[in-house]
Amino acid sequence: MKRDTPGRILLDHGSGGLAARELVRGLFLRHLGNPLLDELEDSAVLDLAGGRLAFTTDGYVVDPLFFPGGDIGALAIHGTINDLAMRGAAPAALSAAFVLEEGLETAVLDRVAASMGAAAAAAGVPVVTGDTKVVPRGAADRLFVTTAGVGVVPAGVRLGAACIRPGDRILLSGTIGDHGVTVLTRRAGLALEGDLRSDTRPLHRLAAAVLAAAPGGVHAMRDPTRGGLAETLCELAERAGAAMEIEEAAVPVRPAVRAACELLGLDPLYLANEGKCVVVAEPGAAEAVLAAMRATAEGRGAVAIGRVTEGPPGRVEMRTAVGGRRIVPPLAGDPLPRIC
Amino acid sequence: MKRDTPGRILLDHGSGGLAARELVRGLFLRHLGNPLLDELEDSAVLDLAGGRLAFTTDGYVVDPLFFPGGDIGALAIHGTINDLAMRGAAPAALSAAFVLEEGLETAVLDRVAASMGAAAAAAGVPVVTGDTKVVPRGAADRLFVTTAGVGVVPAGVRLGAACIRPGDRILLSGTIGDHGVTVLTRRAGLALEGDLRSDTRPLHRLAAAVLAAAPGGVHAMRDPTRGGLAETLCELAERAGAAMEIEEAAVPVRPAVRAACELLGLDPLYLANEGKCVVVAEPGAAEAVLAAMRATAEGRGAVAIGRVTEGPPGRVEMRTAVGGRRIVPPLAGDPLPRIC
Ligand SMILES: Nc1ncnc2c1ncn2[C@@H]1O[C@H](COP(=O)(O)OP(=O)(O)OP(=O)(O)O)[C@@H](O)[C@H]1O
Ligand SMILES: Nc1ncnc2c1ncn2[C@@H]1O[C@H](COP(=O)(O)OP(=O)(O)OP(=O)(O)O)[C@@H](O)[C@H]1O
Ligand SMILES: [Mg+2]
Ligand SMILES: [Mg+2]
Ligand SMILES: [Mg+2]
Ligand SMILES: [Mg+2]
Ligand SMILES: [Mg+2]
Ligand SMILES: [Mg+2]
Repeated sequence: MKRDTPGRILLDHGSGGLAARELVRGLFLRHLGNPLLDELEDSAVLDLAGGRLAFTTDGYVVDPLFFPGGDIGALAIHGTINDLAMRGAAPAALSAAFVLEEGLETAVLDRVAASMGAAAAAAGVPVVTGDTKVVPRGAADRLFVTTAGVGVVPAGVRLGAACIRPGDRILLSGTIGDHGVTVLTRRAGLALEGDLRSDTRPLHRLAAAVLAAAPGGVHAMRDPTRGGLAETLCELAERAGAAMEIEEAAVPVRPAVRAACELLGLDPLYLANEGKCVVVAEPGAAEAVLAAMRATAEGRGAVAIGRVTEGPPGRVEMRTAVGGRRIVPPLAGDPLPRIC
Repeated sequence: MKRDTPGRILLDHGSGGLAARELVRGLFLRHLGNPLLDELEDSAVLDLAGGRLAFTTDGYVVDPLFFPGGDIGALAIHGTINDLAMRGAAPAALSAAFVLEEGLETAVLDRVAASMGAAAAAAGVPVVTGDTKVVPRGAADRLFVTTAGVGVVPAGVRLGAACIRPGDRILLSGTIGDHGVTVLTRRAGLALEGDLRSDTRPLHRLAAAVLAAAPGGVHAMRDPTRGGLAETLCELAERAGAAMEIEEAAVPVRPAVRAACELLGLDPLYLANEGKCVVVAEPGAAEAVLAAMRATAEGRGAVAIGRVTEGPPGRVEMRTAVGGRRIVPPLAGDPLPRIC
């Protein structure tokens, strides 16, 4: 919208950060825009035949295909379930469309499909429709998969950045950076100390527990995937027209993740997560929501990390561990491709 | 299921023919199978919150990206609308997930997105959610797009191969081969005589007219995309547990398409279409359905091409123009990659 997109697509346009936002707003929304798409939420919510339907999609191009804690198949199931769950929907069904490179070992595809089947079964959300395309050798790197999902939004549930109010508390379901650092170190072929594992997992049960704990008291949920916690907060703040303040010391980072980030010069705030969520709740609801999150396996490490303020729209400020303050800018110019 | 899939993925696995069917049944259904997926129809139909929802997906990898009569963006909108329409659904919304190669000219992406926007607007079906991934140079060929779609199936509508009965008439909405031969000649760089153009267009209005003309009298609809009319009839016959008989002379093929096919050694029966549909209707309904098809712009050339018989399940037989009979086998061993 503001800046012209450059003449060629850069890796940065897929980062989930500022360049990606500009490509979506400046190019895609210009041609495809409509009130539902323009909301830029995790799922679109449609009024359909007597109910409200959440609908979302994500492509998966992660490299390597398999990594500690998960693989492209599990990611593709969990990620789409999570984008449905973030709007308060009960996920009902998924689609899966594959682009395969000629020559791909069938055993690799079998392993990916098995992982998808297991992840779908564990989540209780079936894949009900699919597609398979094969492109000649060299026209794709092994395998890409795109999932879409539909879910039912219960009556009365309304979640989104537009519902956020100054004073709201910002909650986080657990540690950050695990997925991003795991994929990056594995891709770099580094064997690091410590136990690095992707956090990929479905969040629909956590989300349902959150909503049950404080009907009406939850304003927004968002899964901090590409661009990490920092980018998610910047986007929420911008779209809410509010500022946010978080405490660095409150944001949980596993020691092994912190060590790997220091070694690689990465900031865990900007690393992708695949099994975490940010919840923005009314101050009066925050304690109950936090307790409900902690009562689930996937939210055991939930913490309050900050609050929404009346500061300049879109500004995210962090009180550092040593007592200073710094601005947390949106992700820019640091493309980390093929993370999911 | 029957034959082991080989140790590597071949182009043939993406053809929409026999090898593709075996990969879907032998690998994907083994891991992902469930009653909705196992139907192997154009869309899954879900019972959801008081209504029935059709849900479908397709990936698009066509090469070249732009061709006479259309482009990858228009195909991606039309194809998913058509798979919804074939189950009798009113298409409600689409998703679009892009995989872009680093270095892609932004102008190319802009043209594709513009075409998608125009196609979505013309069809009255908005894109409500999307995704954008960028992979490094060489990891994908320019751009792939995967659309998914949701639609509402009106009460009482039930269409699918399982509803087909011996005696049913087989109708076809117009000429065959136009899309496939256009993409193949364009890719080969051939400048042929005559006017070759893709037939890509949305079929939801035609489908609605068909259903309105004979409520309860229409048993199945299918869009003959990859694998063409031959593969579509073979699949329908197999899943219906019936045989089919068609008249070669009744199947319309444009002279320019026929000429190009002869030159290239292609059989129009196996070439992909992107704006045609096969309708299987009760004998008593066939005339009314045909008239309703002909009254639409996209079905002006509709014809009756044959009927369902009690012959061996899955057998499709053709009475040739010179009075003989031949079996029309499913597509096998003739991969035509990147046709859609
Ligand atoms: N090519 C596109 N066309 C239209 N809308 C898009 C496109 N790409 C993304 N969007 C929209 O932009 C918003 C942000 O998309 P994004 O993919 O960053 O979110 P996400 O799926 O939550 O994150 P991630 O993909 O990292 O899991 C969503 O509302 C999405 O629908
Ligand atoms: N990878 C997959 N996993 C699960 N089901 C699949 C997969 N690929 C295809 N299918 C299923 O197989 C059936 C046939 O798929 P196919 O893609 O051939 O149909 P289509 O979309 O109508 O054709 P086209 O893709 O040529 O437009 C559909 O029911 C689809 O859901
Ligand atoms: Mg998300
Ligand atoms: Mg996502
Ligand atoms: Mg398909
Ligand atoms: Mg189809
Ligand atoms: Mg299709
Ligand atoms: Mg996304």
